[in-house]
Amino acid sequence: MNTAYLSLERHFARLSSLNDAIGILSWDKEVMMPSGAAERRAENMAMLEGLRHEILTAPVMAELLAEAGVDASGDAAPEETALWRSANLAEMRRLHKRATALPQDLVEAFSHAASRCEIAWRSARENSDFPTLLPYLSEVLRLTRAVAAATGDALGLSPYDALLDGFDPGTRQSDIDPVFTRLRAELPELIGSVLERQAALPAATPLQGPFSVARQEALGRVLMRQLGFDMTRGRLDVSTHPFCGGATYDVRLTTRYDEADFIPAMMGVLHETGHALYDMGLPSAWVSQPVGQAGGMTLHESQSLLMEMQFCRSGAFARWLAPHARTAFDLPDTATGWGAENLHRLLTHVQPGFIRVDADEVTYPAHILVRYELEKALIAGDLALADLPGAFNDGIHALLGLRVPDDRRGCLQDIHWPEGLFGYFPCYALGAMAAAQFRVAACEQNPDILPAVGRGDFAPLLGWLRQNVHGRASSATMPQILRDATGKPLGADAYLAHIRHRYLDRAPDA
Amino acid sequence: MNTAYLSLERHFARLSSLNDAIGILSWDKEVMMPSGAAERRAENMAMLEGLRHEILTAPVMAELLAEAGVDASGDAAPEETALWRSANLAEMRRLHKRATALPQDLVEAFSHAASRCEIAWRSARENSDFPTLLPYLSEVLRLTRAVAAATGDALGLSPYDALLDGFDPGTRQSDIDPVFTRLRAELPELIGSVLERQAALPAATPLQGPFSVARQEALGRVLMRQLGFDMTRGRLDVSTHPFCGGATYDVRLTTRYDEADFIPAMMGVLHETGHALYDMGLPSAWVSQPVGQAGGMTLHESQSLLMEMQFCRSGAFARWLAPHARTAFDLPDTATGWGAENLHRLLTHVQPGFIRVDADEVTYPAHILVRYELEKALIAGDLALADLPGAFNDGIHALLGLRVPDDRRGCLQDIHWPEGLFGYFPCYALGAMAAAQFRVAACEQNPDILPAVGRGDFAPLLGWLRQNVHGRASSATMPQILRDATGKPLGADAYLAHIRHRYLDRAPDA
Repeated sequence: MNTAYLSLERHFARLSSLNDAIGILSWDKEVMMPSGAAERRAENMAMLEGLRHEILTAPVMAELLAEAGVDASGDAAPEETALWRSANLAEMRRLHKRATALPQDLVEAFSHAASRCEIAWRSARENSDFPTLLPYLSEVLRLTRAVAAATGDALGLSPYDALLDGFDPGTRQSDIDPVFTRLRAELPELIGSVLERQAALPAATPLQGPFSVARQEALGRVLMRQLGFDMTRGRLDVSTHPFCGGATYDVRLTTRYDEADFIPAMMGVLHETGHALYDMGLPSAWVSQPVGQAGGMTLHESQSLLMEMQFCRSGAFARWLAPHARTAFDLPDTATGWGAENLHRLLTHVQPGFIRVDADEVTYPAHILVRYELEKALIAGDLALADLPGAFNDGIHALLGLRVPDDRRGCLQDIHWPEGLFGYFPCYALGAMAAAQFRVAACEQNPDILPAVGRGDFAPLLGWLRQNVHGRASSATMPQILRDATGKPLGADAYLAHIRHRYLDRAPDA
Repeated sequence: MNTAYLSLERHFARLSSLNDAIGILSWDKEVMMPSGAAERRAENMAMLEGLRHEILTAPVMAELLAEAGVDASGDAAPEETALWRSANLAEMRRLHKRATALPQDLVEAFSHAASRCEIAWRSARENSDFPTLLPYLSEVLRLTRAVAAATGDALGLSPYDALLDGFDPGTRQSDIDPVFTRLRAELPELIGSVLERQAALPAATPLQGPFSVARQEALGRVLMRQLGFDMTRGRLDVSTHPFCGGATYDVRLTTRYDEADFIPAMMGVLHETGHALYDMGLPSAWVSQPVGQAGGMTLHESQSLLMEMQFCRSGAFARWLAPHARTAFDLPDTATGWGAENLHRLLTHVQPGFIRVDADEVTYPAHILVRYELEKALIAGDLALADLPGAFNDGIHALLGLRVPDDRRGCLQDIHWPEGLFGYFPCYALGAMAAAQFRVAACEQNPDILPAVGRGDFAPLLGWLRQNVHGRASSATMPQILRDATGKPLGADAYLAHIRHRYLDRAPDA
């Protein structure tokens, strides 16, 4: 380790503070900001993004990166620390390379265009009016393609791989295609079998509300604590679209409430808590450094889906949850439908629908497959934006057999493309694959994990995750972490087996 | 106007965005942040302050300021615009001079020390334990004196004047001393007369609670709108210490609620709304530039006190407020004590006490006089911090005749010194003087202002303020703005006349 490396640590610690500031401002934008401040906030965020880019691409950074070394010879640090420093330097170089690939004005233009497009999207979606969004989205796509081309040139990647790599370092289209090809081949039939099996069973009994927001929120907090969320280092709030954000030691998740049905908000909290536990479990010694950050979107989504889908919709957990949820709403044990089996039925109900974020885990990947093909074509220039609504609707029909009635429930439903996130969608489905693999490995390596979850005790699971995923941060790539933890590369096997086990075999703990 | 000037406008627009980010993070720290994030947030804020300082002191800034000119000859801009540009350039030079006076490491050390001291102060105050605060406060004072000396050297000011100038550009100790000397001479006797007159009247009837927080908050929002607050560009929340903060087009005020008594929270909202209306009334064309910012602490406090003390505690407003407040709490018109006269009596009750922020407008300046003398002595090195508690208590006894029972109610009560604000306190009392002068001038120039307030209509008052104070931003100094608006320099006449008129003459509208 030399002084150049130490200087870099100081520069990146400043960037980490800037990231924290951006994190809190992003949270605030969704949760607190008054509507009249939207335009000004967009300018402020673009300025901070620009500042981040400026710091990362300052001439001193290139000089330090050229000089820096973390050769452990003659260094008093233990081998473990030397390895982390080495991984840290590699992460610094990767971030620097991505940043210097883009001129400052492109970064700011992209940020401005994305902010404006996001604002336009809100009303376009409400009015199901794709044409008014088109000019804004065209500008975002134009700039995204410029970003992808420039980044790809610098990294020696195709434009789409360059985008993917920004969300999920090391993941390539060539890793995704075989997994998604298999899903595309098996999913329609599997969905059909699941629906058939479900139809053969007596229908689940809906739970009778109303469920007051105050009690739903209290239940959410109980569950957050149960899973291991540290309430002194985070918050739970309300926003139109649930998310997990915030900053270092300040992890903030949101949900939205429906007084007629508490399940969506509760599952939203459990999902975001999965994300939050990952952020809270990153190693504190590296919290301000690139190597100390979470290892990309696929791993992040695997953590939320592991909690929400794999464990918290399991029969084992439903048995603990049923009486606790009932008590949270102050209902007597004679209340209809509050048995564990019925609750499990409600938690695992499958229903093809138009809206991705409302989809169950069986039909969810279909939504991603559609978006993945479309965004690859958009980036490649093979699909004109004006043709997007039709192509989107065709894709949904092919995989889910549904006719999309309007763009609000079609290509306008997601915020991601309008906010400039291309190459982001596939990570959702990859996360589902990874979550299934993690569950299998965790339960094999520690057979007490599932029984403990069945007692509402997530400590054994969290311990395994801390050691095998969270604590590794970005000290290795996602494929490496996944292989070390599960013994296998990322694939669809565990996911498909899980779906069959839970929805066709209907194993009671699954 | 030349290209250097235009470049400067762009640089300062970036700084304005950075100020906005700091503003939202500061608000968040008091209103939203989980406790476990405090230390990290302090680092983040110090980093952003450091970044602000770095941008302001970058070599390019000095070069541009040397080149910049706004000579209107050959410029197509109207004279008015040319004047604002010229004032803007002067403000830029002033800010640059203040910033370059301080080395970067002193700026960051000061920010860190102040954050740590503020955290230590919270528990020290709770435990009335000055000794545990002493080392933190010593460090803050040491760094403040270094800042004051360096800034004073650069600006040709005494250290204390250099601090004052940071909060209230252009105000000097020599302006304050005669005003405060007069208050020191007249206030003790005046307080005595007011208490005597008050004792001779029948006691006011307390209003019976409980007053639910939800209804108090709803009343607060009604009053904010009534005064002219734009709810699409701001918020009302709760914090331990009420304040007005936020960012451009995003003005956020806070209060705190007591279910036994709604008056403190309500008056807190009215006070902070006065601040907010100033920020909301700054000219939109200059919102990102130094000249477009509010003109210092004395003017800012004059705006909050003009609303809270001068108009909203007047007999005229009490007549409008009484039935509206009663209705807000869903009480019948037979409820005891809800007549306008009794409410006015409650709003203007005078009672010497230990706590500055709870003080009435008659005894308030006494609290400032004590702090002003002490902080001058601390900065000059004439008072050791260890002797502060005793000196503070002696000061309160001399002016208010009270024996301070513990430091919690003595020198530990305020956050300002622990957070590094020296030279800030006098602006509170100067603001009270300015508010009284503004009221006299406004009501003379537009005799409908007070009758309109008596009908709950603040539009005429707000119109006068927009034109004479808010809209001028920093295009002129505070003394100039005050003189232009009121025809007089800042003094104690209007304030003392107001106190006599309201509390001794007991004029019904006063």
